[in-house]
Amino acid sequence: MYFLCYDVGGIDIKMGIVSENGEIIGKKIFPTDATRTPIEIISDMLHRARLLINEVNMQKSDISAIGIGLPGLADNNSGTAIFCPNIFWHDVPIRDYIKMEYDMPIFMLNDATIAAIAEHKTGACKGARNSITITLGTGLGGGFVIDDKVYEGSFGGGGEIGHMTIVPNGKPCNCGNKGCFEVYGSVSALIKSATNAATIHTDSMLAACMKDAPLTGKDIIDCAKAGDATALDVFRLYTYYLSVGITSLINIFDPDIIAIGGGLANAGDFLLSQISIEPNKRRVFNMLPPVKIVRAMHSNDAGIIGAAMLCAQKLHDNSNKLSQCN
Amino acid sequence: MYFLCYDVGGIDIKMGIVSENGEIIGKKIFPTDATRTPIEIISDMLHRARLLINEVNMQKSDISAIGIGLPGLADNNSGTAIFCPNIFWHDVPIRDYIKMEYDMPIFMLNDATIAAIAEHKTGACKGARNSITITLGTGLGGGFVIDDKVYEGSFGGGGEIGHMTIVPNGKPCNCGNKGCFEVYGSVSALIKSATNAATIHTDSMLAACMKDAPLTGKDIIDCAKAGDATALDVFRLYTYYLSVGITSLINIFDPDIIAIGGGLANAGDFLLSQISIEPNKRRVFNMLPPVKIVRAMHSNDAGIIGAAMLCAQKLHDNSNKLSQCN
Repeated sequence: MYFLCYDVGGIDIKMGIVSENGEIIGKKIFPTDATRTPIEIISDMLHRARLLINEVNMQKSDISAIGIGLPGLADNNSGTAIFCPNIFWHDVPIRDYIKMEYDMPIFMLNDATIAAIAEHKTGACKGARNSITITLGTGLGGGFVIDDKVYEGSFGGGGEIGHMTIVPNGKPCNCGNKGCFEVYGSVSALIKSATNAATIHTDSMLAACMKDAPLTGKDIIDCAKAGDATALDVFRLYTYYLSVGITSLINIFDPDIIAIGGGLANAGDFLLSQISIEPNKRRVFNMLPPVKIVRAMHSNDAGIIGAAMLCAQKLHDNSNKLSQCN
Repeated sequence: MYFLCYDVGGIDIKMGIVSENGEIIGKKIFPTDATRTPIEIISDMLHRARLLINEVNMQKSDISAIGIGLPGLADNNSGTAIFCPNIFWHDVPIRDYIKMEYDMPIFMLNDATIAAIAEHKTGACKGARNSITITLGTGLGGGFVIDDKVYEGSFGGGGEIGHMTIVPNGKPCNCGNKGCFEVYGSVSALIKSATNAATIHTDSMLAACMKDAPLTGKDIIDCAKAGDATALDVFRLYTYYLSVGITSLINIFDPDIIAIGGGLANAGDFLLSQISIEPNKRRVFNMLPPVKIVRAMHSNDAGIIGAAMLCAQKLHDNSNKLSQCN
């Protein structure tokens, strides 16, 4: 079975034809250009799909379903992109638009949730019963796979762990609340506190790094690895807050495994060891086997692979519902 | 179908014969006497079951399964009570013990999780897709029902929301961590802060209340309802922290409904209104329908009814696995 898969981002849209096993048959990336109307963007997505299907010598009839990851709140029940602030979408009936050209099952979810199903089915969490994938980036996203099925929430809003409060009345978050996990645990948060520290500690390696260009997550990790005291302080505080959030998730979910994705995961063991030990020590039932905290396997293709895994799961669920034994 | 159900507590054990619809055919309560060995307690449970089955004019063969709620970590996969501190149980293979006399399916879970399935299937959350039940008592317990199935976690430890950190490096918790939701949101926490406040504000209604006997949750609610400024301050801070935790749960789960159980839920709207408005205002996707926050319906029988619902769900799952269409 093959699926037409999209990973819609604020800057670009990744599109692929992906098999039910996660094999990518063909893929393209093109600009989102969010100044266009939703219908213009969707028309462009479909136009480019026709070209891609042709390019890989397939027919439209070879495609069994369409899967879409969206950067915001996507309700698979109604087939609507409810709220995607980066691309200015609000209540866009995306399934209805696509149905006019592709009369086949169309599934959609939030992109962080889609990344979680990619890791669970074909990545770092393969074989687990319950897994969490945390994506550290501009924001802090998350997704759960529970009993081998992706968790959507009642209205498509499940998995917003970035907006779990970890400091009551703490730093303000873009969401309007205060003290959200995202404000302490995202890469943006790390960069912000490193920039502040470098401004104070002008003789630090971190400050030297900042002379020519704004700091990146990689700069901070590199300085900390090199033993710069300022970078290490910033990094320790950052991993402390990450550990606080991860401990809560372990106590709430009792998962087998947690995968950490996003560019910062390239720091590897330097980061993972810091956010594995404390949460496992502090979990309420610390007599249980430790939760593995690992690096996510998929990077840029997580979105289209996850969208294919979503299609496979949903078609399987639907066929189970239909094939009742008599 | 009828199930033999137990709700094992630190003080007493509730036992009932309950139908698959949650109807209680007969029930008994007897002391746990946790000074006895696990095998003595389990023998007593089985002895009393024989009497109850007889009393309601049933046979052992009328019972389809046994369901047990345990005050701690219970792993249904292995049939083991892994850690129940109140009754001093550690790695008790309860399923093996019972199997010697009752060769039938035996299921077990943490008692707060069992209460959640009772509310979901026959109580305040009936008809919901995803629900959370929070029990405010000596501790703060919780359970999730996800897509109509109780959530266990990978090793029986799912749903420990009382040990979600809500204040990093906050007040110490019995679990060894700091700043847990339980330390701010349990009734014990409310009583502790009210007692402290009454000691300072000696002219308050709360202080007068404390003269003859230690404060109870009901005393504090009564004083706050009567407008006592000290009690109101304590109550507002308490509901503030409850709201912080509930907001996180809403953002993580996007549930349809949250039921609040335990004695303090008797405060009704006086409590519920305080912990409904803020979380719905502060949720990240506040354009979604508000999450209903309601009073749990079941009280003392939640444990045995939930145990029956657990049996019904598990037997249904098992029969689905067996009856594959050919």
